[in-house]
Amino acid sequence: MSRILKRFFSSTVTIKPTPSKTHHHQPIPSSNFPSGYLLTGIHAGVKKKPGLLDVGLILSTSSRPTSAAACFTKNAFKAAPVLVSEQVIASNAGRARALVVNSGCANAVTGKQGMEDAWAMVKETDKLLPPSSSGTPDGHETLVMSTGVIGQTLPISKILSAIRSQREGQASLGNDFAAWERAAKAFMTTDTFPKLRSRSFTIHGREYKLAGMDKGAGMIHPDMGPPSIGPMAAGAKGPLHATLLGCIMTDAAVSPASLQRALTYAVERSFNSISVDGDMSTNDTIIVLANGAAADAATPEIDDAKDKEAYEIFKKELTEFAIDLAKLVVRDGEGATKFVTVTVKGAPTYQDAHLIASRVSTSALVKTALYGEDANWGRILAATGSIPLSAPLHPDKVSVTFVPSDGTASLPVLVNGEPEKVDEVRAKEILSLEDFEVVVDLGGGDKAEVARYYTCDFSYEYVRINGDYRS
Amino acid sequence: MSRILKRFFSSTVTIKPTPSKTHHHQPIPSSNFPSGYLLTGIHAGVKKKPGLLDVGLILSTSSRPTSAAACFTKNAFKAAPVLVSEQVIASNAGRARALVVNSGCANAVTGKQGMEDAWAMVKETDKLLPPSSSGTPDGHETLVMSTGVIGQTLPISKILSAIRSQREGQASLGNDFAAWERAAKAFMTTDTFPKLRSRSFTIHGREYKLAGMDKGAGMIHPDMGPPSIGPMAAGAKGPLHATLLGCIMTDAAVSPASLQRALTYAVERSFNSISVDGDMSTNDTIIVLANGAAADAATPEIDDAKDKEAYEIFKKELTEFAIDLAKLVVRDGEGATKFVTVTVKGAPTYQDAHLIASRVSTSALVKTALYGEDANWGRILAATGSIPLSAPLHPDKVSVTFVPSDGTASLPVLVNGEPEKVDEVRAKEILSLEDFEVVVDLGGGDKAEVARYYTCDFSYEYVRINGDYRS
Repeated sequence: MSRILKRFFSSTVTIKPTPSKTHHHQPIPSSNFPSGYLLTGIHAGVKKKPGLLDVGLILSTSSRPTSAAACFTKNAFKAAPVLVSEQVIASNAGRARALVVNSGCANAVTGKQGMEDAWAMVKETDKLLPPSSSGTPDGHETLVMSTGVIGQTLPISKILSAIRSQREGQASLGNDFAAWERAAKAFMTTDTFPKLRSRSFTIHGREYKLAGMDKGAGMIHPDMGPPSIGPMAAGAKGPLHATLLGCIMTDAAVSPASLQRALTYAVERSFNSISVDGDMSTNDTIIVLANGAAADAATPEIDDAKDKEAYEIFKKELTEFAIDLAKLVVRDGEGATKFVTVTVKGAPTYQDAHLIASRVSTSALVKTALYGEDANWGRILAATGSIPLSAPLHPDKVSVTFVPSDGTASLPVLVNGEPEKVDEVRAKEILSLEDFEVVVDLGGGDKAEVARYYTCDFSYEYVRINGDYRS
Repeated sequence: MSRILKRFFSSTVTIKPTPSKTHHHQPIPSSNFPSGYLLTGIHAGVKKKPGLLDVGLILSTSSRPTSAAACFTKNAFKAAPVLVSEQVIASNAGRARALVVNSGCANAVTGKQGMEDAWAMVKETDKLLPPSSSGTPDGHETLVMSTGVIGQTLPISKILSAIRSQREGQASLGNDFAAWERAAKAFMTTDTFPKLRSRSFTIHGREYKLAGMDKGAGMIHPDMGPPSIGPMAAGAKGPLHATLLGCIMTDAAVSPASLQRALTYAVERSFNSISVDGDMSTNDTIIVLANGAAADAATPEIDDAKDKEAYEIFKKELTEFAIDLAKLVVRDGEGATKFVTVTVKGAPTYQDAHLIASRVSTSALVKTALYGEDANWGRILAATGSIPLSAPLHPDKVSVTFVPSDGTASLPVLVNGEPEKVDEVRAKEILSLEDFEVVVDLGGGDKAEVARYYTCDFSYEYVRINGDYRS
């Protein structure tokens, strides 16, 4: 049917069902979690449906000081929990021992009341912590996160009594799989499965654990930077761009400054390299806690100024783990039927490569073509060329290749600026896979670092989900 | 139904029919067109369907020199017709007398063959021109445009014989409504109606006419600048961001440099301020011709260095006319059911306001909410805050208002950073209109220039049209 005719053809369309993603949630042996943490998830009633967990708690019980680092949304309308967490980290020079999260309401654009509510969550959670030898100047040791609808205030008394329940004989805090899973469920909004992973690594012969969780399915195109106030502050400058929330806990001992540096690096290559819909939230936050519970008293905190080798191992492990967690968000993207990796190589700089990967990953035309399983490389190219770079792009050096995830042969569609005669049957084979990769090579050689973005397709289901979000 | 449940609910949805837009095409009295032009549209066979016009010709027959100015896409993959038109304008110091356009094939990413084809179109059209007293250095006086699929070469012999037909007794060139309409139809791709308008204005007691046409429905988010080579070149630097093609003809006499300056100003506020899908094309081009046919021999060319007043009148008329033409493209946006004006005021600079208006206009979450007729101002705010500005934005000064097009009362939803208690029934009333305006006031006072962007909603129909474009 011609395109013009189609535009007048009013009818029904069958929505391709979003493939079930629940197999991405699997039990993890309790021994794989880092030691020195207690977690739970509670139904406080922010979400109306009985039993849905909506308040999560994560406490460090380590006898060593716990370092905390974070990356926050660069959105000008930072939600109250973002502002409060920034203050807690700043006033404690990178020390914090607890995290409280609620889902169902973002506590964003809620004025003074919002700030009071976020602080109340911090203070109530502080009371759950065992006394600390290290002490902090203002006594607040809890970071806070919220996710949900913007512009509504929290049902704060419900949330506070849920937190309080953990001191009043109804404690469900634990460190086994069930406890971690409850916490992960408390993060969920439109997520279809809880996103929980663990990993272990070895430094100087000692084994440490990383475990973490995140959430997000829509309003996902984070661009997060380190805190904008306090000793960890950095110029929060960057390119343009859900709520994406995530936290990562380790039982390694890491100095606050090195933890922040490692997290900033990891976030750029993970959470700042994913897109569902190109929209940046007011609440995006990634927090990492390092409590040293698996290090003996004599093991110093990992610090890049003192032991570069140990730091580099930690940074690499944290980055790979963050990428694993970040991919889960795209996998569960609203309406997504595809998981597509956009790889850009041979660009003048990593930032250039990252910008192009971001633009291709957010192009509505590219994403609808992915949904339609159409190897429309012209749209990929148009998106690639629409970004001003630090040095001119040479169209006659650019190549585009589709790489299937099943190990079969790649399909070049453009080689050094010249279109290939594309085998459309083969193209369809690759694009009908759930996972594949699009490689854009700008031809600048292999010196430049490769940027990878993780994105999904744009479907009828996306329009349905977001055409009546609040109903 | 809960959002999570919805994600698994595979079914059919009824696609709201895109409202018919054909009433936006109306006859124009032939006396309203500028004098000294001949136009036509021909079926050459680029489009397969018999009778569909796909080659357009516009010739200036004025005895005075014709000035030509243009703004071209900033995409790194500029199509062959863009590169060739840039060269013609550069080598002729802003003089050109003809325009040839084809639809159905973009002649983009077509290598050497593409350049040869574009030049062949220029040369064949040059032969249609009457001898010129002014003469040009290389003899080429034709600009060229193409639109359609990327990566395919033109059926060039069909196109050349169509052009040649105008010299061989089959000439359909004319200056009446039917001729202008034929030319406008030759621009169309997924457009549902030809986009043709005229306007008159007076300078120093003399009446001049403007008439023009444009096309575009998808891959629309132009960012065009003046030619990158030749005397009219300017640093083509700008923010990020179909094929949009347009041409405007006037019978006023304007110097080439002033014509370019006026066009660059007008394009920023018109064609560079529209978005259908946020995707920038490799072919976007706007051309203006000024042939002086309505000025007597003694009337000098309008030039801002010599007669500022006349120049300012011309610039204002050109800008308003360009906005009228640009709006038609959004009105006909692929799958669009809404025409929404996004106005940003009180920003530190016009560029800041323009960037925010652009971001709000391209947000997938905002556009699906518009489709859903949902006053989800939280998404508007999140998009507003996601752009780094030249000065910090003050969240507590920001207001958001929905303004209906039917003259009834506006609906403030956020005032000085505080959410209003929104009358949802009234909100639905406004959002169910086909036309309305979203005003984002950053609270920086009325000194800053107001930026306006014109956008549409994101519908099931958009996904359908673009999910299988090439089929």
